[in-house]
Amino acid sequence: MTTFSPAIILIDPQMGENIGMVARAMLNCGLTDLRLVRPRDGWPSEQADCSACGALEKGVVARVFETTEEAIADCHFVVATTARPRDMVKDVYTGRSAAEKIRGLEAQEQQCAILFGPERSGLVNDDIALAHGVVTIPLNPDFTSLNLAQAVLLVSYEWRQAADQTPEVDRHFGDTCPATMDERVQLYQRLFDDLERGGFFTSAERRPTTQRNLTTMLNRMDMTEQEVRTFHGIISALNGKKGSH
Amino acid sequence: MTTFSPAIILIDPQMGENIGMVARAMLNCGLTDLRLVRPRDGWPSEQADCSACGALEKGVVARVFETTEEAIADCHFVVATTARPRDMVKDVYTGRSAAEKIRGLEAQEQQCAILFGPERSGLVNDDIALAHGVVTIPLNPDFTSLNLAQAVLLVSYEWRQAADQTPEVDRHFGDTCPATMDERVQLYQRLFDDLERGGFFTSAERRPTTQRNLTTMLNRMDMTEQEVRTFHGIISALNGKKGSH
Repeated sequence: MTTFSPAIILIDPQMGENIGMVARAMLNCGLTDLRLVRPRDGWPSEQADCSACGALEKGVVARVFETTEEAIADCHFVVATTARPRDMVKDVYTGRSAAEKIRGLEAQEQQCAILFGPERSGLVNDDIALAHGVVTIPLNPDFTSLNLAQAVLLVSYEWRQAADQTPEVDRHFGDTCPATMDERVQLYQRLFDDLERGGFFTSAERRPTTQRNLTTMLNRMDMTEQEVRTFHGIISALNGKKGSH
Repeated sequence: MTTFSPAIILIDPQMGENIGMVARAMLNCGLTDLRLVRPRDGWPSEQADCSACGALEKGVVARVFETTEEAIADCHFVVATTARPRDMVKDVYTGRSAAEKIRGLEAQEQQCAILFGPERSGLVNDDIALAHGVVTIPLNPDFTSLNLAQAVLLVSYEWRQAADQTPEVDRHFGDTCPATMDERVQLYQRLFDDLERGGFFTSAERRPTTQRNLTTMLNRMDMTEQEVRTFHGIISALNGKKGSH
């Protein structure tokens, strides 16, 4: 099975350094198809090799085209990134919804492309007209100054996240594992017994409530097996017995 | 109502240029609380002012601290960004799930902070131990080289998106509006009548199917009022009548 991924197309990019940073951001997100339309300072570029931090050797393939039409010739779906709404009837996607749209089309083996304009001026209307939709990344409306590589990073990042399977929150356990409830309850009981001997519970009436509160607090630690042993050692040490840690 | 937003804390940042790019990425996403622990080249920094593109004048406030403990003193929840899993029992968040966690805590008026280590070496274990959890942004495992400002951008971007209300796909209409079905159906019928006169329908039997297919295709254009008028003009022009465009 061929896996599809979108082409990143830079129209009239100026500084080679920026093209290299784009390549780096692409490969961070697993994208490799970079297309350059009329790069001002030519191609290949030493500045690009330098700022790409190896991305141009390790996966990203850059190709140069004379026109936007040639660069998108094999594509089925094209979106144009622009911060400004234009006087055209176009679907406006967020970075996230564009990524989901593209993933859906790629599952149908359609080649997609994302157009980025030159650093200062952005895309011209003729290029935007060719696109099926516009991508406008929702950012702080009072400060939208985003450089080219950062714009490519955000769109590429959303494409990667749209298929990412990483669990939302994953507790890292290393070499240890969570304590069983039996290990925890034994620890809590031992603590309560020692606290009783130390005169901690001043009122027999309130002792059950206090124990429940302590159990709740200690449970929130979600101790590992090793940590239960360490905690026994802490109690012993505070008791004046030799800690087992 | 005070609105909470996370502090971005850079521990031992090296180049002023990178700090400025961090400030720019923060303000792109509406963050303004930047804390610097032992910035190597001192603070303020001309390089930072330059690369911040105005972010340090337009909203981001940077403060300098001697220790991580002082920098996080007022915080209730702290996460540490690191690409490497460490030998600590910690919750590991994605950029997105960390942003959702932080938004939830901020709704409860808790101050949150996100720690970033120095450019080359990343956070030290003592700083990670202080954090409630670790953030690992899921990227291409074969090329994780991400610069400091890009890491800050991705985490800040997720924080902004977590409360973003932009519609997923929004058709931009400018000064015009969608055509009514009546305007469309009249256009299609006019086209079919003209096509009949031009001998387009070779088989009376297949004409209904052909018309349905044309209706389907034309409907996908989702024409505006103005575009319906333009299309009438196109038909007239092709018919040899004067176009009404």
